[in-house]
Amino acid sequence: MTAGDSLATGQRSLGDKDISYPLWPPLTNGCPRTSTDEVAYPVEVDYTYERVNSDLLSHSGRGSRGSGLDRWAPLLPPLAAPGLGEGGTPLVDIGGGVFVKDESRNPTWSHKDRLNRCTVSAAVGVGAQGVVVASSGNHGASAAAFAARAGLRCVVLASDGMPPAVDTFLNAYGATVLPVPEAARWPLMRQLVERFDLHPVSNLTVTHTGHPFGAEGYKTIAYEIFTELGVPEAVFVPTGYGELLFGVWKGFAELKRLGLAQRTPRMFACEPAAGGPLAAALRAGRLTGRIPVGPTSAYAIDCSVAGHRGIVAVRESGGEALVVSDEEMRSAQSELAGQGLWAELSSAAGLAGLRGYGAFDGPVVCVSTSSGFKDLSVGSRKSEAVEPTWDGVLSRLRATGFPT
Amino acid sequence: MTAGDSLATGQRSLGDKDISYPLWPPLTNGCPRTSTDEVAYPVEVDYTYERVNSDLLSHSGRGSRGSGLDRWAPLLPPLAAPGLGEGGTPLVDIGGGVFVKDESRNPTWSHKDRLNRCTVSAAVGVGAQGVVVASSGNHGASAAAFAARAGLRCVVLASDGMPPAVDTFLNAYGATVLPVPEAARWPLMRQLVERFDLHPVSNLTVTHTGHPFGAEGYKTIAYEIFTELGVPEAVFVPTGYGELLFGVWKGFAELKRLGLAQRTPRMFACEPAAGGPLAAALRAGRLTGRIPVGPTSAYAIDCSVAGHRGIVAVRESGGEALVVSDEEMRSAQSELAGQGLWAELSSAAGLAGLRGYGAFDGPVVCVSTSSGFKDLSVGSRKSEAVEPTWDGVLSRLRATGFPT
Repeated sequence: MTAGDSLATGQRSLGDKDISYPLWPPLTNGCPRTSTDEVAYPVEVDYTYERVNSDLLSHSGRGSRGSGLDRWAPLLPPLAAPGLGEGGTPLVDIGGGVFVKDESRNPTWSHKDRLNRCTVSAAVGVGAQGVVVASSGNHGASAAAFAARAGLRCVVLASDGMPPAVDTFLNAYGATVLPVPEAARWPLMRQLVERFDLHPVSNLTVTHTGHPFGAEGYKTIAYEIFTELGVPEAVFVPTGYGELLFGVWKGFAELKRLGLAQRTPRMFACEPAAGGPLAAALRAGRLTGRIPVGPTSAYAIDCSVAGHRGIVAVRESGGEALVVSDEEMRSAQSELAGQGLWAELSSAAGLAGLRGYGAFDGPVVCVSTSSGFKDLSVGSRKSEAVEPTWDGVLSRLRATGFPT
Repeated sequence: MTAGDSLATGQRSLGDKDISYPLWPPLTNGCPRTSTDEVAYPVEVDYTYERVNSDLLSHSGRGSRGSGLDRWAPLLPPLAAPGLGEGGTPLVDIGGGVFVKDESRNPTWSHKDRLNRCTVSAAVGVGAQGVVVASSGNHGASAAAFAARAGLRCVVLASDGMPPAVDTFLNAYGATVLPVPEAARWPLMRQLVERFDLHPVSNLTVTHTGHPFGAEGYKTIAYEIFTELGVPEAVFVPTGYGELLFGVWKGFAELKRLGLAQRTPRMFACEPAAGGPLAAALRAGRLTGRIPVGPTSAYAIDCSVAGHRGIVAVRESGGEALVVSDEEMRSAQSELAGQGLWAELSSAAGLAGLRGYGAFDGPVVCVSTSSGFKDLSVGSRKSEAVEPTWDGVLSRLRATGFPT
């Protein structure tokens, strides 16, 4: 498959679905006609759905893992940037009808690779010399990896307080990493976009709109779940700005639109209780929201501002926006580890949301977004040395509850 | 597929191929009849090859990623332990006929998950209460993950000098981690095996034999390469004890034996130049070897002792045992990062070996074993804060060679 396989036709406003724009250039400042100084509305990508070959979404498991997002090229923006075998992640059955979609199996070990295959493809499509991204984590490292693969420069505006392991990660792919205080990131990002030929692959607007092609990449999670499991009752998603939540929702909505699925799952946003702008906006009946964020170790989803995409996903799917405490996420993280899956704390928010919510009659999918190696706790030595004798070993085993 | 699909029939000595044993119990002390006080010989698993359905290895890409090693159950020991969607990793084309088999996409982000699915299955098969492993890295964490998934205990005899991030990793899955000096590890491991009902999933013998079922898991790398690419000219493999090298070799040898492939690839062992017991043994015409290891950052493959498996793989395939310096591995690591793949230093040994060796007429596969997150360098802050003004950003961009 090549970029030429894409059936994308244009961009449509989420602020008013009757407003559409050409596919190029990607509207990285959101919908210019509906956005206000208070609320920015994203655009999404439109396709000629009537030309989709229904074999594309058959249950046959066609397409090998190595093919990455290319398998779904007709329902994605043109994939002009080379891939890294992103996507195709396993759905791990943890019992009780619960399945974990383990996104840590991606090229940079998080779901963000699905987004950045699409955003860096946009940068290639507009002929940019590089990309710029504001991120202190998975988003930035993934952008750096796909930019390197495409032969583009990458500038990362990182937070000065990022964990050291994340700093190593961001630097690994040859990006120019600029640690700056939070407040300076977006003004500097806008300047970098305006003064250099750098395509922005993270958000630029007052409420979150992100890159119009990015969430499209997340639709492939829905396609993969569908080909393996059918339509689950519910999907629980760790939620920061709501791009992942929306992308998974849109994928299922498309399956129904294409007549392949009879129904859609309920989408559950799982935000840290320390913040939760989406839950707050929904409670207040607003179209998006901003909220102060208290202390939390779930640094990947501790967002103070929501995006309109999350509202759309929860409302249209008949879902809910839940908040989960750090303690609940730690408990879910332990449960995942007990099944052999070591997830970043934020990644466990999906399972934490499910455990707090209750049971379902049919299968439920919890998306686990990233690897435990991104956790803040990584690198603090935990194991104490043991006396290297049999007695020393025995006494340690007994201390840890091992039946001796 | 279930454990019942396995066509495994018994264990055969690598010391004398005419000697065979029943499949159970797994001979974790190597071949009792051919091993001496100086050299231990492993056993391998035998199958009723004539009963293999040739569809199993068709190029159709049958079997989804989520199915893990189960796809290949007939040619593996009984998979009694539950899987985690291990294997099915992408083959990334980096140009010039070179493909990288990226094993960092496994459940614990290294190739060891293929081995441990099989070794922990052996522990389940013998009804052990748990497993014990001597490791300060990928092998131990992977064993801990599969043991947790199977509901078994896991004791890890780690090195007191392991990197802190690896310590977090080993502890993540609920294992009992016992850091002890190198010399104490194997005596204590033998005691744990003898006195408790713990199945050993790493080596117990004087030269390396490892677990007889472990290398079988690595055969699936050959099967996956074959279904996607056919038979490459050569495979370059980061080599410590030679289990991975042997497993990949055996997989290709089986494909030829089954009449599915016309030939086999040349197998290249890539050891750190600071040691290199396999290269030394081959030079000296010995059947295995022991050698002092100097300083190297490739801690995952800095072995002082070789195993007979590596000798078999290099000799039977017409391959070679190469050594690569840390500088060559760093250069290969940078090359991989420039393609969007961040590998642990040891993981880059395969590509380093190829780059030092020269070109081939046909496709070549370099196995990249693990993620950059396991590197010793992780966690040392690299990025200096930048003055958060446009002038500050400009001056940093210029300092890093960015065209402004």
